[in-house]
Amino acid sequence: MAITFYCGSGSPFAWKVWLALEHKKLAYDLKVLSFDAGDVKKPEFLVINPRGKVPALVDDGVSLYESSAILEYLEEKYPEPSILPGGAAARALARRIAAESDTYLVAALRTLFVQTLGKRNGDGDPDAIAAAKKLVAAELAVFEVYAEREFLAGNAISVADFAAYPQIALLKRVAEKQPANAAPIPARLTAWSQRIEALPYFGRTVPPHWKTA
Amino acid sequence: MAITFYCGSGSPFAWKVWLALEHKKLAYDLKVLSFDAGDVKKPEFLVINPRGKVPALVDDGVSLYESSAILEYLEEKYPEPSILPGGAAARALARRIAAESDTYLVAALRTLFVQTLGKRNGDGDPDAIAAAKKLVAAELAVFEVYAEREFLAGNAISVADFAAYPQIALLKRVAEKQPANAAPIPARLTAWSQRIEALPYFGRTVPPHWKTA
Repeated sequence: MAITFYCGSGSPFAWKVWLALEHKKLAYDLKVLSFDAGDVKKPEFLVINPRGKVPALVDDGVSLYESSAILEYLEEKYPEPSILPGGAAARALARRIAAESDTYLVAALRTLFVQTLGKRNGDGDPDAIAAAKKLVAAELAVFEVYAEREFLAGNAISVADFAAYPQIALLKRVAEKQPANAAPIPARLTAWSQRIEALPYFGRTVPPHWKTA
Repeated sequence: MAITFYCGSGSPFAWKVWLALEHKKLAYDLKVLSFDAGDVKKPEFLVINPRGKVPALVDDGVSLYESSAILEYLEEKYPEPSILPGGAAARALARRIAAESDTYLVAALRTLFVQTLGKRNGDGDPDAIAAAKKLVAAELAVFEVYAEREFLAGNAISVADFAAYPQIALLKRVAEKQPANAAPIPARLTAWSQRIEALPYFGRTVPPHWKTA
């Protein structure tokens, strides 16, 4: 087994890499680290990623981290099935949307997640949640335009979908756990998220603790 | 002239792309947008980047934005001279350090820049500045290790250097403008920054308003 993949349950950046590994039909040894148990800060993991963050991946003895760099690595080393479209302009679009997800979508959602999923008793600050929902709505409107396409960057799945989907999945989880605090997901993005969830390998990537709680 | 490059004076993400364009010896029509004049929010620019941000680049009629996606595009379309090393693992390292720069180095420096370069009268909050300097020192210690190499990802210049250099340059500017608020730059990073500044094309990428003020 060449690849060891380190994830943490519910980490959207780890989920991004997980979807790519499955899409590429790669064999990997899965290590689910526990944030509560401090696994990511243990010396044996800091050897792999000194920043103590997931995802990380070891392939043939080489340690890799930072999800966007891992995806590019997987695409170069294991090109088929691809996670980038053909042609420089189309590839730039897919990478741009992935970067927009990692930057703007993540930033827009951060406070809402802290104040909802991060407050297991549901005692988030109502004013902060109201303000966060406005930010989320504005950013989702941008992605709603991308979701006019079958996949965010065109008619094939790509790094753009793998980057954005886990963020939207976390937002769906807010709706499930704390419906009053949910930010509505527009129609085309909802339909796109269902296309991701219908992928044959999708079920293997669902965060382990979501299956039980 | 195939490429039109939109930058804003002092934007570190634009500077990243600018260094790459020069390194690749590409011809480009330079458009310096003024933040003060609101150029980035004008309708004619929003057609190119609806987010109203620089850098943006138009190549043969295709609009591109998000600096990391632009660099990958340039590397694919104009591969020589390269801005990525050879070999999947070495390329992953370069992309990883570029991502670390865009994420952690930028985050560590943000408050310091807001409280210093963002306060032209030097009236930043002293407590915020003191706290920010600690964050900066911790992150610079990580990059100081990378700077043991001639360039951050090895013995050739790459996306890692183009991403990190403008951040360090802004930090040098803090030292120049408000010496009391400066965060010290460790020795190897300083020497590395001087190697970047010695590049034959470096002078053409210095933010225009820095030349006069």
